[in-house]
Amino acid sequence: MYLLHYAPDNASLIIRFALEEMGQPYQTKLVNRAVREQDGPEFRALNEIGLIPVLETPQGALSETGAILLWLSETHAAMAPQPGAPDRGAFLKWLFYTSNTLHADLRMLFAPRKYAPPEHRAQEMHIEAATARLLRAYGLIDRLGAQGHGWLDPDHPSVLCCYLALLLRWPQLYPYDADHDWFDLDDFPFLQKMAARLETRPAFLRAAKAEGLGPTPLSAPRHPTPPEGSAT
Amino acid sequence: MYLLHYAPDNASLIIRFALEEMGQPYQTKLVNRAVREQDGPEFRALNEIGLIPVLETPQGALSETGAILLWLSETHAAMAPQPGAPDRGAFLKWLFYTSNTLHADLRMLFAPRKYAPPEHRAQEMHIEAATARLLRAYGLIDRLGAQGHGWLDPDHPSVLCCYLALLLRWPQLYPYDADHDWFDLDDFPFLQKMAARLETRPAFLRAAKAEGLGPTPLSAPRHPTPPEGSAT
Repeated sequence: MYLLHYAPDNASLIIRFALEEMGQPYQTKLVNRAVREQDGPEFRALNEIGLIPVLETPQGALSETGAILLWLSETHAAMAPQPGAPDRGAFLKWLFYTSNTLHADLRMLFAPRKYAPPEHRAQEMHIEAATARLLRAYGLIDRLGAQGHGWLDPDHPSVLCCYLALLLRWPQLYPYDADHDWFDLDDFPFLQKMAARLETRPAFLRAAKAEGLGPTPLSAPRHPTPPEGSAT
Repeated sequence: MYLLHYAPDNASLIIRFALEEMGQPYQTKLVNRAVREQDGPEFRALNEIGLIPVLETPQGALSETGAILLWLSETHAAMAPQPGAPDRGAFLKWLFYTSNTLHADLRMLFAPRKYAPPEHRAQEMHIEAATARLLRAYGLIDRLGAQGHGWLDPDHPSVLCCYLALLLRWPQLYPYDADHDWFDLDDFPFLQKMAARLETRPAFLRAAKAEGLGPTPLSAPRHPTPPEGSAT
């Protein structure tokens, strides 16, 4: 039985979605961001990096979203081209790119004060640079999806689809106090279609309900109203 | 037979090191950074992301350093805990962390004008923030290494050791015009020992010689004098 350490609408939701799709039983434990539990000794003993999610497994506590997804897909021989498959290399390429560029740039956008000087213009330029990089990354993945790769098929989602799903939601919502006009899902026809399909899947509906995401959490998201904890 | 698209002392050297360790035959093709070949149509047809390295394989052209390393380790059942192994999850965690944090932050440090406003103070603060994050990341991996994980044993290097090797070299050298005092390998006893061991391995010596790295390229590096192309 897995134990997912989570905060609502955080990267842990990507793992929750994958676990639901795989039909793997799991329990959850809230990481209370309001009191910065992720910086406390208990959480750091599970993950010295200090980031949510952590998934406790028979192999110990795993972390890093991309690593957990890949490990789950291997362990359950599900939701990814397996080692030795002809499209394994391409799948790994885009999983790493999603982790080290798309997800990394979103984190820079969501916490600009960690990355850029506090002055208005510096913050503004930081955000402009991050959104320009992000639009390019979404564009690359949109064109990739249009090529018809099996591991980007929202009707048979891979773990990478789970990852991308939430990375399509967040720029429409976060940070709360920011302008989100820079991101329009309609500009990315493949991703738009993917979001609309994924959000109707029973596995996604269960995950979304557990964290209070409301209707159409990918294609037209609203701020979550989670039963416990808070998203930011 | 593999074909590695490379530039001297770029991330392609990580792949070259791994191929040498695995004893896999490969050829190389220079990506001429002086005329920005990585932005040209020929290179973009191999990797739409536009980053070096690309490895041409029987599965097509792969890219993303972490993905190529993982794919090679699976394909040749070498230099990594394989799928199903008890330490697979931990290995994947740190491979992703190295890719999305350590390597990503180094790229931000090496090209500060891509990430921060051009004003002196903004650049300075960007560099301060990046170096602080990097020192934390090196510290985490240094303490991890001291725990004695098999996939961080420089006498039986994993692909992650190949990755880390170059990430220990570069902050001592790049950017050319910057101060490198912030990084002192002696502050990280495990990594210091790892660098000293890895740079004496025949596989590393072959890779280093091919790109003109000179003696002690990890523990006391000097600017490379490659036979073709340029590092920056």
